[in-house]
Amino acid sequence: MKNFVFHNPTRILFGKGRIADLKKEIPANSRVLITYGGGSILRNGTLSEIREALSGFTVFEFPGIEPNPAYETLIQGVDLARREKIDFLLAAGGGSVIDGTKFISAAIPFAGAPWDILSKNAKVKSAVPLGSVLTLPATGSEMNNFAVVSRKSSADKLPFSSPLVYPRFSILDPEKTFTLPPKETRNGVIDAFAHVIEQYLTFPVDARVQDRFAEGLLLTLIEEGPKALKEPENYDVRANIMWTATMALNGLIAAGVPTDWATHMIGHEITAKYGLAHAETLAVVLPAMLRVRRAEKREKLLQYAERVWNLRDDPPETRIDQAIERTRQFFESLGAPTRLSGYGIGEDGIPVILSQLERHGMLALGEHASFGLDGARETLTLAL
Amino acid sequence: MKNFVFHNPTRILFGKGRIADLKKEIPANSRVLITYGGGSILRNGTLSEIREALSGFTVFEFPGIEPNPAYETLIQGVDLARREKIDFLLAAGGGSVIDGTKFISAAIPFAGAPWDILSKNAKVKSAVPLGSVLTLPATGSEMNNFAVVSRKSSADKLPFSSPLVYPRFSILDPEKTFTLPPKETRNGVIDAFAHVIEQYLTFPVDARVQDRFAEGLLLTLIEEGPKALKEPENYDVRANIMWTATMALNGLIAAGVPTDWATHMIGHEITAKYGLAHAETLAVVLPAMLRVRRAEKREKLLQYAERVWNLRDDPPETRIDQAIERTRQFFESLGAPTRLSGYGIGEDGIPVILSQLERHGMLALGEHASFGLDGARETLTLAL
Repeated sequence: MKNFVFHNPTRILFGKGRIADLKKEIPANSRVLITYGGGSILRNGTLSEIREALSGFTVFEFPGIEPNPAYETLIQGVDLARREKIDFLLAAGGGSVIDGTKFISAAIPFAGAPWDILSKNAKVKSAVPLGSVLTLPATGSEMNNFAVVSRKSSADKLPFSSPLVYPRFSILDPEKTFTLPPKETRNGVIDAFAHVIEQYLTFPVDARVQDRFAEGLLLTLIEEGPKALKEPENYDVRANIMWTATMALNGLIAAGVPTDWATHMIGHEITAKYGLAHAETLAVVLPAMLRVRRAEKREKLLQYAERVWNLRDDPPETRIDQAIERTRQFFESLGAPTRLSGYGIGEDGIPVILSQLERHGMLALGEHASFGLDGARETLTLAL
Repeated sequence: MKNFVFHNPTRILFGKGRIADLKKEIPANSRVLITYGGGSILRNGTLSEIREALSGFTVFEFPGIEPNPAYETLIQGVDLARREKIDFLLAAGGGSVIDGTKFISAAIPFAGAPWDILSKNAKVKSAVPLGSVLTLPATGSEMNNFAVVSRKSSADKLPFSSPLVYPRFSILDPEKTFTLPPKETRNGVIDAFAHVIEQYLTFPVDARVQDRFAEGLLLTLIEEGPKALKEPENYDVRANIMWTATMALNGLIAAGVPTDWATHMIGHEITAKYGLAHAETLAVVLPAMLRVRRAEKREKLLQYAERVWNLRDDPPETRIDQAIERTRQFFESLGAPTRLSGYGIGEDGIPVILSQLERHGMLALGEHASFGLDGARETLTLAL
């Protein structure tokens, strides 16, 4: 096992009726900015519930944070928050809203150009505290300190992180996910699945707890993902998916093990150039990536085949083939195409994506820091 | 899944050479009290390493915290800390030292009689911050807010908890466990195992992540426990056990599920009256407890039999028998007797233990709050 630091101070309030607890979680007399996305939380009543829970606070609202939150949008939130002297941010939505709100949180007190937080990794020295009400389990943003922000004008999609942007609390009410469109449910399951794979399917370091936890999350997604599509109002199914997605990217299963993230980095470029949902890019890239890197990931692929897909009898190479194919079929079974062609991207897209990776310096990715443009080309070609 | 709050702010520094990081974790200019137990950290060099890492701080020491830390001892630590205006406590040891230090932490600023924190559940309104250097993985105290303290004069062993006594940080260096006596290694494994069982083996609430995590911890202990006894300097084995013991009682696997703890409550009384190590009481009580309550725990016992002990083929009642018997044999294989007689306690001990339970109001224990003196009598009789 590798040395590690694990620290996750986010307070999780999980279950039915939790929004009423908001009042106790936000410091009295705060000037609160509720940030959110499109209209879903308006339509399903979540926003009114939040507004009601916040009676007594001075409340402002910043709607319009889009999927793959845009710097151009968020900077308007920063302006509003500075103008209104906001001292607490409440993100109500999925990973995009929470990620965007983390950026707003860090950008409000930032002295220089906020874009530097993303483009130059400028150090975040202070941040306005934030909390979240999660409505879409997927990214884990509700219990971590990462965010990814896009800039439309330059087709950039860049991450940042800071210990200052952990949500102080996150409210996870599975009932708030009953009305999710099937596509968002599906994308959330795929996103969480890929998060686990990036931290699990590398090379063994005899980290048994982390491996068993990762496998438990994958098994839960495989069992519960299809059910969520069939029975959208099954509370326990929604609860299991919600808690899995949070655990999938809160630092726990990454503690003490190598991590990969090459699939994500290629995926980000596909989103930046072609606008696919994050999970769609993962559904395309991940199975192809595993085929390309089956030698370096051999031992963990065999463990994955056995413990997650119960493949024990065939020769090793066959078990690996089957595990990768089952992964791809799982994504397809949820309704996500797993080929670039399924999203209208052809061979001519490959150099476009490669040049994006090159421009962002993504030339030594993966658990061995050895995955570069050649590997990316091979992966994308297999994914055509 | 039940509603839950999960919040665990302890910062874990895991791995080799971590004691050198102490300086960064404790606020500058702190007046630090190092608390510890017997001589082992003196003999194996851990204490000198800590002293060296704390050069520059004003440091006091409070040795002599015994296994099952005694109120009578700890109160002397409280006096010392008050006298020397200590503002940071550093517990160096296992669960007893950390538990005892949590009590000191809460008692220092406590206005009334500190015993009330234990005997009357008096509310802890402030506490001196503490950190820990863990040398014995077992209780999980390094990453939770519970403590159990004994009072010799009255044969009490009582728990308390407060969000104020989470360690600010805990240093977990597996190398510091290489020199543990086999008996302490064994007891740590049994203790962690029983902690998981108390939170897992109740009744199903379809909490899949929690179940899989619990099963992963149990499997790790079954795989690694015997190895730790055979290869005490195997780093990965020690690391896996250390991380498992921490995860076994940090709130994670208890989130959203029913918990039992009847085995622990009976065990505490056995320790208070007969001086057995905590884990020894668990090794005795747990298998008998599972036999007595096999009907109410049936579904989870079958799940446990299948997923932990790989028992799939025999009829259900046989699988349950076998799972309980495997549990008992596992404890025996580590060298722990699983009968009261193995510790020189006969039938005449049963009314003694029952009267202790009665005196402490332990009359409605377990996940259904229905386990009382009759059940305890049956359990102890089966454990003779």
